[in-house]
Amino acid sequence: VIIAAKRAGRPNEFQGPETRRADQSCPFCAGQEHRTPPPTAVYHSGMAGGSSGLWQVRVVPNLFPALQEPGPFAPQHHGPYQWSRGVGVHEVLIESPRHVAHMSQQSDEEIDLTFRAYRDRIQAAGQVAGVAHALVFKNAGPAAGASLEHAHSHLTATPMVPALVREEMDGVRRHDRQYGRCVFCDMIQQEQRDLIRVLERTAHFIAFCPFASRFAGETWILPLQHACHFQQTSDECLPELGRLVRRSVQRLENALGRPAYNYVIHTAPFDIECKDHYHWHIEILPRIAKAGGFEWGTGYFINSVPPEEAALALRTVTPS
Amino acid sequence: VIIAAKRAGRPNEFQGPETRRADQSCPFCAGQEHRTPPPTAVYHSGMAGGSSGLWQVRVVPNLFPALQEPGPFAPQHHGPYQWSRGVGVHEVLIESPRHVAHMSQQSDEEIDLTFRAYRDRIQAAGQVAGVAHALVFKNAGPAAGASLEHAHSHLTATPMVPALVREEMDGVRRHDRQYGRCVFCDMIQQEQRDLIRVLERTAHFIAFCPFASRFAGETWILPLQHACHFQQTSDECLPELGRLVRRSVQRLENALGRPAYNYVIHTAPFDIECKDHYHWHIEILPRIAKAGGFEWGTGYFINSVPPEEAALALRTVTPS
Repeated sequence: VIIAAKRAGRPNEFQGPETRRADQSCPFCAGQEHRTPPPTAVYHSGMAGGSSGLWQVRVVPNLFPALQEPGPFAPQHHGPYQWSRGVGVHEVLIESPRHVAHMSQQSDEEIDLTFRAYRDRIQAAGQVAGVAHALVFKNAGPAAGASLEHAHSHLTATPMVPALVREEMDGVRRHDRQYGRCVFCDMIQQEQRDLIRVLERTAHFIAFCPFASRFAGETWILPLQHACHFQQTSDECLPELGRLVRRSVQRLENALGRPAYNYVIHTAPFDIECKDHYHWHIEILPRIAKAGGFEWGTGYFINSVPPEEAALALRTVTPS
Repeated sequence: VIIAAKRAGRPNEFQGPETRRADQSCPFCAGQEHRTPPPTAVYHSGMAGGSSGLWQVRVVPNLFPALQEPGPFAPQHHGPYQWSRGVGVHEVLIESPRHVAHMSQQSDEEIDLTFRAYRDRIQAAGQVAGVAHALVFKNAGPAAGASLEHAHSHLTATPMVPALVREEMDGVRRHDRQYGRCVFCDMIQQEQRDLIRVLERTAHFIAFCPFASRFAGETWILPLQHACHFQQTSDECLPELGRLVRRSVQRLENALGRPAYNYVIHTAPFDIECKDHYHWHIEILPRIAKAGGFEWGTGYFINSVPPEEAALALRTVTPS
C-alpha cells in the first residue's frame, strides 16, 4: 500500500454533476504549461523533420505524486509492520495540446508520439538508480480513477518488482517448466486456432478478449513474436501498436458508449534474468461492473459477459 | 474468473438517476416473498421465545447466482486454459422485512439475527459435499457492486480455497515460522500499544484502521482471542460483534456521508489443518477512491488518507 497524502489535494473535475468545459480550468491544455512542473520530455509535430513549434505530447512530473522520493529503498520495522518512504518516480504523459477526452479524438500523430513517449520514458526510468520496474497506464473516466478528462497517461517506477508482475512471472516459469513453452505464446496460438475471441491481427500484434476475462469487453494486445520488454519495440512497430490500441479502445467506445476504462502496459522488470520468463502485453480493462465483496474476499472476479460474446460484439463495431 | 452470464439479467435499481422508492419494485420487502426462491432459512422476531409471525431475516438462493452447480469440481483443459462448471453455492441474506438501506436504520434484533444467520449459513455450507470455503460479504451502494439498496448480504461457497485466503494463510505461516506467533495477534498487540489507529475495543473484539489501509477509512474487526473460524463465535459474543460492525459502519456513514462500502468476513477453510494458521476477521472497505491502472498493474494500492488521520476522524463521530 502506498500512503500518499499529497494526492488528496489534486483537482477533481468529476466531482460536480457535469464535467467542466475546455477552458482555463484544465491544467493540461496548451497555454497552461506554467501550471505543471517543468517537463522531463516534450514531443513536437513532425519531429523527424525538426520541431515545428507547438508540442504534441508533453511529459511532466506528477504534481500530486504517489511516489517521488529518491532512493535508497530501506524498509523500516514497526512492530509486525514494515514501511519505507515512497521511493520511486511518477510522471504524467499529456497526450495532446487540445482538450480531448477520448482516444478516437486523438490524431495519428498524437497516438504515435504518445507510444514513442511510453517507450522513451520507460527507458529513462530504467536509468534511475534503484528502479526495478516501470509501469505505464491510462485511467480514462472517473470510474477508472481519473481526476481530469484531458487525455493523459501515467508512468510509475518502483524500487521493487510489483507483486502482480512477480505473480505473472511465476506463472510463466511454472508453465515453462511443465511444457517448455511460453504460456503467452501458447495463448496466442490457441486464440488463432479458436478465433472466437480474436478482435484483430496486424503484422506484428494480436488483440483478443482473454479466455478468463475479468471484465466485460476486457481486451489484451500482445506482440506475436515473443518479447519481454515493451521498451524494445522498434520505431517501425510502435505506430502499428498505438493505432491497434486506439482501434481496440474505439471498439469499446462504440459498443459500450464510451465506458470508463484502464489500460496497462505489462512489461518485464529491467534486470530480468531470462527473456523467456515474460511476454509483454497491454491489458485494456473496461470499468462497467463494480468489484464487490466477492472480489475483495477471494481475489477472483465475476464477469457476466462471456469473452466469446464480448468479442463478437466488439468485432462488429468497425472502428473509424 | 467466474463467467456468470445469468447475472447479467438481474434488476438494477441504481441505473436511473434516482434510486427507486420503497414499493412493489423491491423484491426483498415483506409481501414480495413470491419473487425470490423458497428460503433456505428464516429468522423470526423473539425467536428464543417462539415465532411471532413476520420474519426479520430471510435467506434465499440467489436468483442470479455467480455459482450454483452441484459438484464434483472437475476442471477441464482447453489448450493452455482450464475451466469448470460453476460449482458452489450463492445465497442472499435479506436483513430486514422493511425497506431500509443503511445499517444505522436496522434494529438491534435485525442485526443480531443477521449475524446469527451468517454463522448458521456458513456452518450449513460446510455440510455441502465438496465445499472447501465459505465467504460472507455485503455490498452497500452501487459503487460497491450492489444492484439493490434493500439491506442484504451474500454467502458464496466454493470448492477451492480462494486465492486471497490462501495468500493470507501463507502470510500467517511465514510469520509463525519466523516469530512463533500469529501475525494478527501481533497486530492486535501493536495497535493497543500505538492506540492511534484504534476505533474501539469491546470485551471480545477490537476495531482499528489497519497500518497498511488500502482505502481511506478502511476498518478491520478482530476477535481479541485467537480463533480461526468465524462460525465458532458463541451466542453470547455474536450480538456484541454485530453491533460493533454496525457502529463501525455508522462511523463511516457519519464521517463520509454514507459512502458505498463492502464488508467481508475472512474465515478459515473448513478443513484447516491447524487453527494457528488463521485468525478470522472482518474487513470494512469504504469505496470512495476508484482503483486505477496502478492497482491493476501492480497489485498495490494508493491511499491518500493515512490510517492515523482516518481513525482520528472516525473516533470523533460518535455512533448513535
